[in-house]
Amino acid sequence: MRVIAEIFSQGEEVVSGQTVDSNAAWLSQNLNELGFVVKRHTAVGDCLEDLVALILEIAVRADCCLCTGGLGPTIDDLTAEAASRASGQDLLFDPTALQGIEAYFAKRQRSMPALNRKQAYFPTQAVRIDNPVGTAPGFAMQIQRCWFVFLPGVPSEMKAMFSAVREQLLGRFSVQPDCLVSLRSVGIGESAIQQRLESLVLPNTVQLGFRAAVDEVQTKLLFPAAFAVDERMYWTNQVAGLIGDAVFAIDTPEQTQGDLPTVIGREMTKRGLSLSVIETASQGLIAAKCIGQDWLRFVQFSANIAITAERWGCAYFADDLAQSAAELARHLQQHQGLDWQLVQLYHGSITDPDQPIVLYNALQTRDGLFQSSMNVAGRLQTKQNQAAMLALDLLRRTLKMTCL
Amino acid sequence: MRVIAEIFSQGEEVVSGQTVDSNAAWLSQNLNELGFVVKRHTAVGDCLEDLVALILEIAVRADCCLCTGGLGPTIDDLTAEAASRASGQDLLFDPTALQGIEAYFAKRQRSMPALNRKQAYFPTQAVRIDNPVGTAPGFAMQIQRCWFVFLPGVPSEMKAMFSAVREQLLGRFSVQPDCLVSLRSVGIGESAIQQRLESLVLPNTVQLGFRAAVDEVQTKLLFPAAFAVDERMYWTNQVAGLIGDAVFAIDTPEQTQGDLPTVIGREMTKRGLSLSVIETASQGLIAAKCIGQDWLRFVQFSANIAITAERWGCAYFADDLAQSAAELARHLQQHQGLDWQLVQLYHGSITDPDQPIVLYNALQTRDGLFQSSMNVAGRLQTKQNQAAMLALDLLRRTLKMTCL
Repeated sequence: MRVIAEIFSQGEEVVSGQTVDSNAAWLSQNLNELGFVVKRHTAVGDCLEDLVALILEIAVRADCCLCTGGLGPTIDDLTAEAASRASGQDLLFDPTALQGIEAYFAKRQRSMPALNRKQAYFPTQAVRIDNPVGTAPGFAMQIQRCWFVFLPGVPSEMKAMFSAVREQLLGRFSVQPDCLVSLRSVGIGESAIQQRLESLVLPNTVQLGFRAAVDEVQTKLLFPAAFAVDERMYWTNQVAGLIGDAVFAIDTPEQTQGDLPTVIGREMTKRGLSLSVIETASQGLIAAKCIGQDWLRFVQFSANIAITAERWGCAYFADDLAQSAAELARHLQQHQGLDWQLVQLYHGSITDPDQPIVLYNALQTRDGLFQSSMNVAGRLQTKQNQAAMLALDLLRRTLKMTCL
Repeated sequence: MRVIAEIFSQGEEVVSGQTVDSNAAWLSQNLNELGFVVKRHTAVGDCLEDLVALILEIAVRADCCLCTGGLGPTIDDLTAEAASRASGQDLLFDPTALQGIEAYFAKRQRSMPALNRKQAYFPTQAVRIDNPVGTAPGFAMQIQRCWFVFLPGVPSEMKAMFSAVREQLLGRFSVQPDCLVSLRSVGIGESAIQQRLESLVLPNTVQLGFRAAVDEVQTKLLFPAAFAVDERMYWTNQVAGLIGDAVFAIDTPEQTQGDLPTVIGREMTKRGLSLSVIETASQGLIAAKCIGQDWLRFVQFSANIAITAERWGCAYFADDLAQSAAELARHLQQHQGLDWQLVQLYHGSITDPDQPIVLYNALQTRDGLFQSSMNVAGRLQTKQNQAAMLALDLLRRTLKMTCL
């Protein structure tokens, strides 16, 4: 059975173009993976008549609709009222919802503004969806043919609530999720991966796709629900082999391995290793990406790394940054006394989008020195992010190589 | 006169969520700036019936619609056919369009694949829009109430064609752009701002809105085009005064001030100041946010700041972090010799989402010591980001206070 779904985003910031609507794409991908057929995305502004009209349109043509935005405390947040009008159900005060909102503020040692009370009103027949990370609870309800799920527009809140929504949807619709395998890689582009896979002839029921995110490229294999598990593993391994050691994680429906810092963190913790880092081009982003990881003990950024080298009595050659990075890593060990030391240096202008930079990473371990070097081009933030990812990737590869 | 516009994006990659639709936001912003009222965005996949149905819907409710996608040479590119069916106008071969496409290939020393001939067919009454950077020409035509403009989905092509579209639209519609003023603030929530503004009675032609982003809250005032400039400034100042010193920038159509690091950077550079930083809770994110800014010279993150204090012979009181931050800032000045020193310390568990942390910031300047303290709750990344923003905000406030 094809279950028709739609996505509906509310907000002046979306319809005016102030915000690019990434929620719609995220929800679509998730619905597709569950087995829903997403037919349409619509965005409208904070105007009650427009909202009611849209809900009533969708109510007759879709089986399920995920909506984001308009659940905040302010006057321009109109979703509950629009759902109430479209369904003919009054708004009812939900004391449990209010307790949740009050608890949210209490935990932050702040008193709840009176305005937020508004967020505890839902149409009579609506099912509340709790928000573990914000003030706005969501709700779900049937309007004519369609099951509407209303979620906050703040992406982190919407995503945090989606696991509960997923369970609810799977209980309500008999969809057969296709089986998605995602091969996550770093340090290689989407089209280079596609070229490596050109020789491969996949079964024609298996769908191949790519998604380039900021930190990684995901190569996606979508297998039909009925596809045999060992066959699925066979094809996954074929693809992983062709992409090569740029693959840092393979996510399956059974197991998610996480992003690069998570994958590294698991191994560092298992082996009881600690790390100190010198960042230059990534300027704090290696540290920032590893937030919450105990093994990262010390990070330094310096706009003029030669000064640090001089203070440490460490040889520094401006024309041999590979050598300089190795020297700095050795001295960093002496200064911080940690297990491993990672040093990043670079040549070139990071601010000039027309100039690439050349990165030099050195990782001093107890088993020896490991190094990598790479060109990175693009905007300032692209270079910064790539610099952080490539340094972390040297750490990952070294962990893999030195694994007993 | 309000001219109602819509945006319509075609493509499986959009509706399946593989691609985030940034075209819609870009076109919306441009239409808004021209004075159109954008009421709705819609995305559908590559399905002829869906396309025809959508065109006919929009044809009766909007005055103008900008459409992207579906103009390519392949079988799933159905836009011209859908426009033909929706308008009842046959597809007509346009020899000039074909010459353009052939010239595109000739310039690249390639022969035109036969498939591309398809891109030279348009509905009888359509006006062709040449594509200076790709193979797909666009076209525009009236269908019932609405003037439809069909453009390629490749963002660079769509944008390259938009200047011609803009001229066409301004010739066809008498629009007057509204004037958006955005008051950007940090360290205060959306609902708290609204409460501060409760006493204010704005002229009823002025529209008030809010947008909470990760790093800031924007309070938005939309003035009609005819609103007098001094009146607009008066109301902007009223709102800014009520929100108070949390406002770090006011963006107007005449001038955009930028985000918090940009605002700070301008002032640091103007005054020729350099800064060193010790980060704890934000773990590199202060540094990362200031990428490309010359005045940030040195940043250190340490998982155990007491060790750094001990090495520096600096007094450290685990039960008085405000005092400890001040001491560390003083020692940091001795060690790095820069103009200003910012030290961030915190109490509590950053990883436990149920526990708030208490942040202590100390900023040592040549004019004295400035400090701030605040509770932050939420997920790990929320705490990390807030910690970075609040430290930067102390820097901004201090710059303002010490301004001559």
